[in-house]
Amino acid sequence: MSQQVLDLVVALRTLAEHGVIDAYGHATVRSESNPQRYLMARNLAPELVNEEDILEFDLDSNAIDAKGHAVYQERFIHGEIYKARPDVMAIVHNHSPSVVPFACTGHEMRPIFHMSAFVGLGVPSWDIRDAQQGTDMLVRTPYLGEHLAKGLGKHPAVLMRGHGSTVVGENLQRAVGRAIYLEMNARMQFQATLLAGPSGRIVFMDDAEVAANVSWQNYERSWNLWKTRALAKLELEKN
Amino acid sequence: MSQQVLDLVVALRTLAEHGVIDAYGHATVRSESNPQRYLMARNLAPELVNEEDILEFDLDSNAIDAKGHAVYQERFIHGEIYKARPDVMAIVHNHSPSVVPFACTGHEMRPIFHMSAFVGLGVPSWDIRDAQQGTDMLVRTPYLGEHLAKGLGKHPAVLMRGHGSTVVGENLQRAVGRAIYLEMNARMQFQATLLAGPSGRIVFMDDAEVAANVSWQNYERSWNLWKTRALAKLELEKN
Amino acid sequence: MSQQVLDLVVALRTLAEHGVIDAYGHATVRSESNPQRYLMARNLAPELVNEEDILEFDLDSNAIDAKGHAVYQERFIHGEIYKARPDVMAIVHNHSPSVVPFACTGHEMRPIFHMSAFVGLGVPSWDIRDAQQGTDMLVRTPYLGEHLAKGLGKHPAVLMRGHGSTVVGENLQRAVGRAIYLEMNARMQFQATLLAGPSGRIVFMDDAEVAANVSWQNYERSWNLWKTRALAKLELEKN
Amino acid sequence: MSQQVLDLVVALRTLAEHGVIDAYGHATVRSESNPQRYLMARNLAPELVNEEDILEFDLDSNAIDAKGHAVYQERFIHGEIYKARPDVMAIVHNHSPSVVPFACTGHEMRPIFHMSAFVGLGVPSWDIRDAQQGTDMLVRTPYLGEHLAKGLGKHPAVLMRGHGSTVVGENLQRAVGRAIYLEMNARMQFQATLLAGPSGRIVFMDDAEVAANVSWQNYERSWNLWKTRALAKLELEKN
Repeated sequence: MSQQVLDLVVALRTLAEHGVIDAYGHATVRSESNPQRYLMARNLAPELVNEEDILEFDLDSNAIDAKGHAVYQERFIHGEIYKARPDVMAIVHNHSPSVVPFACTGHEMRPIFHMSAFVGLGVPSWDIRDAQQGTDMLVRTPYLGEHLAKGLGKHPAVLMRGHGSTVVGENLQRAVGRAIYLEMNARMQFQATLLAGPSGRIVFMDDAEVAANVSWQNYERSWNLWKTRALAKLELEKN
Repeated sequence: MSQQVLDLVVALRTLAEHGVIDAYGHATVRSESNPQRYLMARNLAPELVNEEDILEFDLDSNAIDAKGHAVYQERFIHGEIYKARPDVMAIVHNHSPSVVPFACTGHEMRPIFHMSAFVGLGVPSWDIRDAQQGTDMLVRTPYLGEHLAKGLGKHPAVLMRGHGSTVVGENLQRAVGRAIYLEMNARMQFQATLLAGPSGRIVFMDDAEVAANVSWQNYERSWNLWKTRALAKLELEKN
Repeated sequence: MSQQVLDLVVALRTLAEHGVIDAYGHATVRSESNPQRYLMARNLAPELVNEEDILEFDLDSNAIDAKGHAVYQERFIHGEIYKARPDVMAIVHNHSPSVVPFACTGHEMRPIFHMSAFVGLGVPSWDIRDAQQGTDMLVRTPYLGEHLAKGLGKHPAVLMRGHGSTVVGENLQRAVGRAIYLEMNARMQFQATLLAGPSGRIVFMDDAEVAANVSWQNYERSWNLWKTRALAKLELEKN
Repeated sequence: MSQQVLDLVVALRTLAEHGVIDAYGHATVRSESNPQRYLMARNLAPELVNEEDILEFDLDSNAIDAKGHAVYQERFIHGEIYKARPDVMAIVHNHSPSVVPFACTGHEMRPIFHMSAFVGLGVPSWDIRDAQQGTDMLVRTPYLGEHLAKGLGKHPAVLMRGHGSTVVGENLQRAVGRAIYLEMNARMQFQATLLAGPSGRIVFMDDAEVAANVSWQNYERSWNLWKTRALAKLELEKN
């Protein structure tokens, strides 16, 4: 479990450094030793998380041993998606700022940039009101988590109206890279939309290009950079 | 008083780090030992403030003991709001950049993001000209402070035309969190407005969602992060 | 001269830190011992300048003693404005990014924010082509400097088409503060213009408000912050 | 070769620091000892590159001695441009974010700012689909590199739809400066386009101004700053 735990800490630090996550948002990874469990930090801002803060949860999002710590209210986002999507090994829930304006305007995200080709696999929007009226917007129950997982369907990400997004991947570095480049895609698509004006003519990646890119894109070179940086920072904090 | 003083220093450092406040703007807290008094820094840029720079004021905004220091001209913002609003325990006055364009265009701020749900309680706009013509825009007198407090009314924040905003809360971390997420709401609403175009169709949080969220939102996890960071920085400065 | 020299170094470091100046752009101050001379760094990026890099020039922009160093090509901006404007004691020439789009679209800068009230004294646009065709855009000659000084007239700043702006003040901290808040005004006015849409309704500061604010605004609290920061950095570099 | 290698490391660090390159993108320089070869880092994020990571390639983009390291897939961008353009001594391929929205909307880049005067020499757009359907958008083959080189033609830069841009220069500092100011030009032109509105009236640099500026512009003062910064950082990393 130890390498997975360290990688999760690296992921959290990286997402915070890129402004994809502030004090809120979380990343998790499915346990490689038991696919019916996932790893998630205790209730703590991601940039403060260390290896000892990582807990294990079952897919009903019960902590196996919370060690007396509080846990995230929205852990059901993770547990219910791991149930519904056996292919998913890692999940990032976040509030990255350029993404939020898309869901609430009904503007569809499209793949404008090869680093975010996965957007071309479809990024549906989910409105919590379709599951329950008058919530505080948080996915606080198994029911809401399950409803969100249905909204996500077979796609790599789902926008959450008035809230943010949830991004998934077949491995941790893919989920992290997708979360970072979803934000970048939103910024670029926003600018392209304004440049294009009423004509709306924007050339996005086509389906064949998307398929050719997502087949292999694991953000390897990025991950190497992010891990190098995060490990250096963890080392510094220990001294 | 000492924990409150330290928390106020943390608040000021945090607001500066987030770009909500530059050399100008101020945060105050109502004294927990005497509700007829409030704590405010001497006339100094917030990111330079230390515990020894915090002074006590009565609600007419007279310093109890200025210790020979200059005080902020705009302290009446704080004193007059504390008089008018017994529920308010903390106030942040700031010039965060994305908020300013809203008041001067008559564009109403709406809650686009669950972290800024409080915007849904109403954020009125105030124009100093309605109180007095030809000012330098500063709230330099008890009369102007009282007029602003009336503009704020029962709401969590008030926009100030050509100036910035004043944000209040039932505790310090709530006021700080609201100031930070008011700026974020402005950025997101600006982008959504442009994406929506002439149709103007944006789905904001509805009243029930706002009510469910503001009832408990104290930005606890953020506050823990901000305090950890600020205390580390204060420690560094001492060495 | 020594305090003036140190303040000029502080000004240059501050402008670089705020992104108002990158490797290009310069700030100067009229010598307090001889009003027919001004102080300017040798040809060096502002954030690298130290006290020993400051040279003295006459108002024809000849270095009194260049100490073998290269000097800025565009020093005539400064010399010619000091000639034409005896009230001006400091000048900042810069390429701050949000300002450039205003001059080339004929969009007039207006005072949207009390920290940039000076914009209400009028910020004309100058096009180098009106002085000379086919230049490389640089103010390389006394003639071009004089022409720009005429474009500036009695105002606190002049936009330069395809280039940037030149900002003046009755003292150094005022010129630095104006350069920083001119950039901020441009960002806010850009956003307000888009929010307002075709109606174009934006409430700017009125003339009485502008007059009341510019009479005293010397960015004192900012200057204290900037100087504290810059001196700490200079100290660090020496060790 | 050693000074060229160090300068290439400085270039890579500088591009990363300016956000022109993240983990992806690359800069190369033609070998000064053999014009049939170029220098490029091994497959590594630019901000991690040190002198020992620089490899030599022939113009067919074969590594002379890869020392067991993986190499960049897109090295053909560089080899094929060096073949087609004997005048080109350095190349920067990057994904700088404000540039991407231009190519996909058919919006032509124009020289809005004297630091990016080279844009006035023409910046064509290239679509990989015109060479091959269904790619993953990467220039992975000599054929695609050659096709891109034709798209570039005699110009200083070429936009790549859904991808980024490739910028060339007669020396390394010119190519780096151009990549940084191409991003700046894109930001400024985006804002000017929105300010201008449907009228579209923007005064760009004219041809004579462009010619007068590009004749000498080598970003000397910037390069001195960038090199000073990068060498200080490299020194720090060694200790």
